[in-house]
Amino acid sequence: MKKYLLPIFFVCSLSIAHGQQQDSLLLRRLATEMLTNSTAYENLRTLTKQIGGRLAGSPQMLKAEKWGEQALKEAGADKVYLQACQVPHWVRGAKEEARIISNRRDFIPPLQVLALGNSVGSDPKGITAPVLEVASFDDLEAKKDQVKGKIVFYNYAFNPTFIKTFYSYGDAVKYRGQGASRAAKYGALAVIVRSMTHSTGNLPHTGAMSYNDSFPRIPALAIGLQDADRLSTRIKTDPSAKVFLRSNSKMLPDVTGHNVIGEITGSEFPDKIITVGGHLDSWDVCEGAHDDGAGCVQSIEILRAFKALGIKPRHTIRVVLFANEENGTRGGKQYAALAKANKEQHVFALESDAGGFTPRGFSLTMSPEQRAKVLSWQSLFLPYGVYDFSEEGGGVDVGQLHAAIGTPMGELLPDSQRYFDIHHAASDVFEAVNKRELELGAVNMGALIYLIDRYGL
Amino acid sequence: MKKYLLPIFFVCSLSIAHGQQQDSLLLRRLATEMLTNSTAYENLRTLTKQIGGRLAGSPQMLKAEKWGEQALKEAGADKVYLQACQVPHWVRGAKEEARIISNRRDFIPPLQVLALGNSVGSDPKGITAPVLEVASFDDLEAKKDQVKGKIVFYNYAFNPTFIKTFYSYGDAVKYRGQGASRAAKYGALAVIVRSMTHSTGNLPHTGAMSYNDSFPRIPALAIGLQDADRLSTRIKTDPSAKVFLRSNSKMLPDVTGHNVIGEITGSEFPDKIITVGGHLDSWDVCEGAHDDGAGCVQSIEILRAFKALGIKPRHTIRVVLFANEENGTRGGKQYAALAKANKEQHVFALESDAGGFTPRGFSLTMSPEQRAKVLSWQSLFLPYGVYDFSEEGGGVDVGQLHAAIGTPMGELLPDSQRYFDIHHAASDVFEAVNKRELELGAVNMGALIYLIDRYGL
Repeated sequence: MKKYLLPIFFVCSLSIAHGQQQDSLLLRRLATEMLTNSTAYENLRTLTKQIGGRLAGSPQMLKAEKWGEQALKEAGADKVYLQACQVPHWVRGAKEEARIISNRRDFIPPLQVLALGNSVGSDPKGITAPVLEVASFDDLEAKKDQVKGKIVFYNYAFNPTFIKTFYSYGDAVKYRGQGASRAAKYGALAVIVRSMTHSTGNLPHTGAMSYNDSFPRIPALAIGLQDADRLSTRIKTDPSAKVFLRSNSKMLPDVTGHNVIGEITGSEFPDKIITVGGHLDSWDVCEGAHDDGAGCVQSIEILRAFKALGIKPRHTIRVVLFANEENGTRGGKQYAALAKANKEQHVFALESDAGGFTPRGFSLTMSPEQRAKVLSWQSLFLPYGVYDFSEEGGGVDVGQLHAAIGTPMGELLPDSQRYFDIHHAASDVFEAVNKRELELGAVNMGALIYLIDRYGL
Repeated sequence: MKKYLLPIFFVCSLSIAHGQQQDSLLLRRLATEMLTNSTAYENLRTLTKQIGGRLAGSPQMLKAEKWGEQALKEAGADKVYLQACQVPHWVRGAKEEARIISNRRDFIPPLQVLALGNSVGSDPKGITAPVLEVASFDDLEAKKDQVKGKIVFYNYAFNPTFIKTFYSYGDAVKYRGQGASRAAKYGALAVIVRSMTHSTGNLPHTGAMSYNDSFPRIPALAIGLQDADRLSTRIKTDPSAKVFLRSNSKMLPDVTGHNVIGEITGSEFPDKIITVGGHLDSWDVCEGAHDDGAGCVQSIEILRAFKALGIKPRHTIRVVLFANEENGTRGGKQYAALAKANKEQHVFALESDAGGFTPRGFSLTMSPEQRAKVLSWQSLFLPYGVYDFSEEGGGVDVGQLHAAIGTPMGELLPDSQRYFDIHHAASDVFEAVNKRELELGAVNMGALIYLIDRYGL
């Protein structure tokens, strides 16, 4: 037997090498097409500048759905359709406000704040109360006897020492998510949360929070970093300092939103699906350019470029612009529920929801064998700047599909340094997105979709 | 013998593993220090906002030298000194201008232009002439009989299909550097050169050019991309179209400038030098934030952080803020000439002059054995985002040292996607630099300096 092993192995190697060379050439064509003729950047301009912020339930949500349908048709989808789902309808109402009140009667500029998503408004006349600053939940527990009747101020700093900024976010976001109920448990009247950002500016960064129904629902505001420092200093040095705050937000009854879907029908396996998507909703206070207009236009670009290059995928490639990721994930849940109910066969699901910055890698959640298969393609990605396959993960939306039916999933990992400068803040605008960085994300996503379509997982 | 090989090998492995673990911990301390206490960003703010553009020979050059001395002292240098050199003194003079003139007498907005560095001014009354557009030098040669009495317009597009944008620059920059003399050879009166940029805006991007003394010196202007397209369309559709241009630039006699140098004296080998630097000069029309304020403040930050952490390098670490990189490289040449004349021993020289963006790698010019040694440290850089050691290269300034005495050299390779958006244009300002990206560059540069200091090359 040994005699034959060498030649057979040699033939296999040649065939792999030949296959990789063909793949390499195909990926080069894909990159050239996208870097030369991409419509992703102009699509993003339209979405952000003509529609803008598009929170679930808002009139802009409906406009964005229409835009998505049209963009998918123009990209050449074989089939475009909507998938209805009920989405929460939280509204900010009139601009929230907060200011320091002091017996010293010096001039104090107002604090830059934003109500957190899903939070209740204050009494319409506002709340005035002393402020209790806490550094952490442990600190809150230590000071629980001082909480009653106060505004609790979570001043937990975004950790600068993590290299990937998503770790800083994971470390800090609990204060935004759970801070209100944890403080309400001890009688707090409202909470103010230091924004989760590395920004050098003072813009507040909003984001979703949720209530624990065992405790009263109290208002919750994010505060900009410079104002967080100013507030902290003031309450330490001025015993008379209190904060007045008013927010006007409220949750209205659910309304109907939609996942917007466009497909290229598979040439060999039309019933086997590869999903690629981003979320169509965004916070109301920004243009949602990086979060997640970028993921939407990149996904549409893959469809456009495949069509333009005459690539006929074996599986059905389904581009999904998910509804309501930001404050409910109802789009992702509905997509997963229907996939399960309809016994759909899903090969792989890819998401882009970490910004339109230069790609560096993919996070992957799949079996070790499947991961090894993806890793065998690593050298094909290197010319396009992707080298990091070390992370577990996948996006929040495709994560629903993974949870429901076990679909292997992945998420694009762009350079994360600038992401939390703009995340959920007024600075997440079209101008913060670089055309080539956006396109290179689509190139690498398209490459991964292409390889999985060709070789399976 | 065989009996002993295994244990010896095992001991070696343990010792290497232990060494790498210690190095890994040291690099983590270095990163934490720089990401927490760096002065690089505030230094850059001072340099760009209080001094601004600082072309060789300008009053701002002298201010920047004073700033550099002070910053190096504040960082804790054991020794700070200046190294004089003669630098060119090119001045732009009054704002250059260009506009399309047509018999049609419709309103045509002026063209956005910038005189190229080192170029001569036009006749003070300006030049009006028909325009000959050429796509390349080959195209110029083909049309050489039509050149006389015309303004030659090099409309060579920056190639979007290279993934690393420095390749696009290398591909296009000859039209800026040699275009004027190549056209003057055939009797052109002036040249206009399409800017070397991927920007989506219309700002012109200047940069150095040089004359071939065999031909007349004619004015040379860079033009913004949108105006390049507008000019191209106009001259194709309007036979009466000419261009009026006036530039007021001129070269004055050389003046004295300085390399600004700060050192940590080596604890074991004070006479063996590791150089790290960037260039202190910049174009006059911008703040020179990425090019190359970033490289200067990163180099200073390495010195500061080593001192703050009590790292006592074995070799002398010499931070050099080079004079006049942009239009003469006189600082780099002088540094190399003195090193050679004084028989200095140089171990390694590192430059940062490709922008303050997130680092991805280092280009290296050294022997294969030395490169292999650097590659053996690759895994130490990966947590800080550096993975690419594939390029040959080194910076323009340390390149002079390499040419003079063969010193191994390297250059930081930051993400290149945004660099040519701002390169040599009014948009190269402090606000375009991200604090963390800048700091991560310093982290990785500091890591490389640390490892070479510890293990040699």
